[in-house]
Amino acid sequence: MNDKSKFMLRAIELSIQSAQSKGGPFGCVIVKDNKIIAEGFNKVTSNNDPTAHAEIVAIRNACQNQNNFFLKGCDLYSTCEPCPMCLSAIYWAHIDNIFYANTRLDAKNIDFDDSFIYSEINKEIDKRKIKMHQMNRDEALEAFKIWDNKEDKIKY
Amino acid sequence: MNDKSKFMLRAIELSIQSAQSKGGPFGCVIVKDNKIIAEGFNKVTSNNDPTAHAEIVAIRNACQNQNNFFLKGCDLYSTCEPCPMCLSAIYWAHIDNIFYANTRLDAKNIDFDDSFIYSEINKEIDKRKIKMHQMNRDEALEAFKIWDNKEDKIKY
Repeated sequence: MNDKSKFMLRAIELSIQSAQSKGGPFGCVIVKDNKIIAEGFNKVTSNNDPTAHAEIVAIRNACQNQNNFFLKGCDLYSTCEPCPMCLSAIYWAHIDNIFYANTRLDAKNIDFDDSFIYSEINKEIDKRKIKMHQMNRDEALEAFKIWDNKEDKIKY
Repeated sequence: MNDKSKFMLRAIELSIQSAQSKGGPFGCVIVKDNKIIAEGFNKVTSNNDPTAHAEIVAIRNACQNQNNFFLKGCDLYSTCEPCPMCLSAIYWAHIDNIFYANTRLDAKNIDFDDSFIYSEINKEIDKRKIKMHQMNRDEALEAFKIWDNKEDKIKY
């Protein structure tokens, strides 16, 4: 068995354990220098945290381990194609490669909203199911100006 | 001043405080029954957590306060149009309305990647900057079958 399959099978093991206990059927591992540096499984209902998808849990664990908010040089193995939240988190974390097993349509077939949220994000703001209202932009720009002029800011 | 402006100005206050200290220039409050139930500001670099955007921090806080993984009946006030990660988290949390001030283009103008990540998510999988590779779907479907057949599962 090659290393990539070994890493994915560990993520799958986590997803099965999660499905058999209190979580959604999703697992994830993050790999650096050919070693697993962090793991995650779905904790949405067990932790009352709608953001605690397997990938987000694994990314947060990896960042704590690495003492860094970027994960350059790392690969992520997820048992399902990441939802838009997790995919975006992967971009923010600057991960190198994504390996996945099930697809968003497989997730849809067991009643998860990944596919629906992908379609919502693609829509114009005023066509989305959750209504979005703009206000107070002039006041809010003040914080952006402070940031833009800040000499010792830590970019991310 | 109406209540909506009062809530947004509190979020803006948080964003300015964050920009003046260690965080990115973003703030957020979550409102239920016309009261702020949770607040958040950007903690990406201060906490080494690329997922700690103001909205995600506020959603996590609200869910802990409410002892629930859904935030039905809640509105979210963010000082910037949510990035795709945060917008998806808002969908997963089942929030009612989004109020925002700055836009993704305002964020782009001070070098934040929101706009870039929106464009990446819209692309076909094989056209994205971060490469995605599918593998081991047959093995991964096992967890989905366990979930699908589970009688006492907590849906989300």
